[in-house]
Amino acid sequence: MSSIHAVKRAHAHLAWDNSIPPAVRVHSGDTVAFDCLDASNGQLAPASTPASVAALDFARLDQVNGPVYVEGAAPGDVLQVDVLAIAPSVPWGWSANVPGFGLLAADFPRPALKIWQLHDYAHGAGYAAFDDHSGIRIPLRPFAGEMGVARAAPGPHSTIPPYATGGNIDTRHLTAGSTLYLPVEVPGALFSMGDGHAAQGDGGTAIETSIRASVRLTVLKHPARTAVVNTPHFSTPAAPAQAYYCTTGVDPDIREAARAAVRHMIALLAVEHGLEREDAYILCSVAGDLRMHEVVDMPNYVIGMMMPKSIFTKPGQTGVLSATHV
Amino acid sequence: MSSIHAVKRAHAHLAWDNSIPPAVRVHSGDTVAFDCLDASNGQLAPASTPASVAALDFARLDQVNGPVYVEGAAPGDVLQVDVLAIAPSVPWGWSANVPGFGLLAADFPRPALKIWQLHDYAHGAGYAAFDDHSGIRIPLRPFAGEMGVARAAPGPHSTIPPYATGGNIDTRHLTAGSTLYLPVEVPGALFSMGDGHAAQGDGGTAIETSIRASVRLTVLKHPARTAVVNTPHFSTPAAPAQAYYCTTGVDPDIREAARAAVRHMIALLAVEHGLEREDAYILCSVAGDLRMHEVVDMPNYVIGMMMPKSIFTKPGQTGVLSATHV
Repeated sequence: MSSIHAVKRAHAHLAWDNSIPPAVRVHSGDTVAFDCLDASNGQLAPASTPASVAALDFARLDQVNGPVYVEGAAPGDVLQVDVLAIAPSVPWGWSANVPGFGLLAADFPRPALKIWQLHDYAHGAGYAAFDDHSGIRIPLRPFAGEMGVARAAPGPHSTIPPYATGGNIDTRHLTAGSTLYLPVEVPGALFSMGDGHAAQGDGGTAIETSIRASVRLTVLKHPARTAVVNTPHFSTPAAPAQAYYCTTGVDPDIREAARAAVRHMIALLAVEHGLEREDAYILCSVAGDLRMHEVVDMPNYVIGMMMPKSIFTKPGQTGVLSATHV
Repeated sequence: MSSIHAVKRAHAHLAWDNSIPPAVRVHSGDTVAFDCLDASNGQLAPASTPASVAALDFARLDQVNGPVYVEGAAPGDVLQVDVLAIAPSVPWGWSANVPGFGLLAADFPRPALKIWQLHDYAHGAGYAAFDDHSGIRIPLRPFAGEMGVARAAPGPHSTIPPYATGGNIDTRHLTAGSTLYLPVEVPGALFSMGDGHAAQGDGGTAIETSIRASVRLTVLKHPARTAVVNTPHFSTPAAPAQAYYCTTGVDPDIREAARAAVRHMIALLAVEHGLEREDAYILCSVAGDLRMHEVVDMPNYVIGMMMPKSIFTKPGQTGVLSATHV
């Protein structure tokens, strides 16, 4: 018989550390319901401003909730995390440009903050409206930016970078119906999650929000797999079919190619949709996908920033470039 | 009135060079039908072996067909390339591991060659069968790996790397129904294409094949866009919805993270589907997508190798990991 357990907002910790006592102990196959504050740890609110971003206490960011001790999990096992349900728990979210962070940190030195209204959010569907007039709507595809297990290495490890044990993997595909597999490094696995995202592209910056989520935790004994795969891996249901508009970067350095692809999309959204550059950057982060189109024809890589056309919902706006077919 | 023109197999050239005389001259809005040999330039055939790969004359590889002079195209314009139709022109294709090339060149030092049978290929649909027994089928999604215009810089430029003017961009999304926009650098644009791919993932190595394609070439005068976007950009129709299985790499270096993601998928396909490592590598190239899941949570990047589950068609094979839900 599997049971349901709860991890509350108060069960938050600010580092991966295998000495943190478990919030709950569960059996393999049990379900755990999480209630998690957003990644600002409650520091941002709907009335916040760019000054609030500049004033963020970084030591309190990116907390995760847990840890959950799963009986029977041992180093060398795989922890299977089935994401059963996930949805924002509040009707708003935020996206910020934090100076010094992000792919285009050098291009955007000033703090920026966007507050989104989340419509029909309670079941994980619905949309985030960009503003009152543009008709730009981001479909909600909620997931947890942080899902991970404790590292074997002792002491505290920042929750900002992702690790082979997971953590801040910011992988947008991990919506309800997906399954994440994590390499177990310590007894009980010590699973935690948090960093709710209402929507995000492949790339990593999101519409941040508080979430409620239910996950089923199952221990897999699979020596052949763990011998060869020592990082997170996952399985996804079919995502909706999308038509895209894509800009590219072509460069001998992958990161510069990615930057160029994003810069070009920002420029297009500014020129052809009249968006402010800061807003266009945020739109790339929350709705655009970074793809590695070509990584073999040296010396140049081709990276794409793919924007779903469906986010432009105003009549006549059939795509990013609809106005330019002259 | 728009016209239809033809570029034949004999109209092949082995470098981007703006001094190559046009194969045809067309008006903006005209359609051009291309007949292009595969990227081996006819050096490989269904009876070829790994020894044939080792014996390839590299100086003859990756030819493109054209160039097409488009009246009215001037430096600073954009050439709009509507891919109207594209399909293999032969019932077979090849995938090779060429020593020294590819993301995992160091892992796969020996030449390898796979000959694929293309089923129902004539209209660009159908599938490539991996072999007679595994049930692995790759849906055909044909496109041209090379589409580009001549560079302003004089002299010959290799057709191997992609450039800001396009060329070997190996972008799998450019199937029929998509539109590619290329920055024009010389009078007449001088468009060429080739390097037929029956199928490919985001990443760049494909099922190589000969193709027939029809494209409509249109000159766009759009100074505001060309001032800010100086690389290829494109628009795609909706692709089929797919469920995926994904392995990741987590590393401070993007390229190493990509390599780890692919290595992990190769390992999984070997352990859980019994594939030879060389075959698994080829499968990653022709069917798997490289995504940049997370590029902001420093110091570690997360890159994913996403494999569509639908390629596994045998009863009971419901996904990459179907055998391991123990």
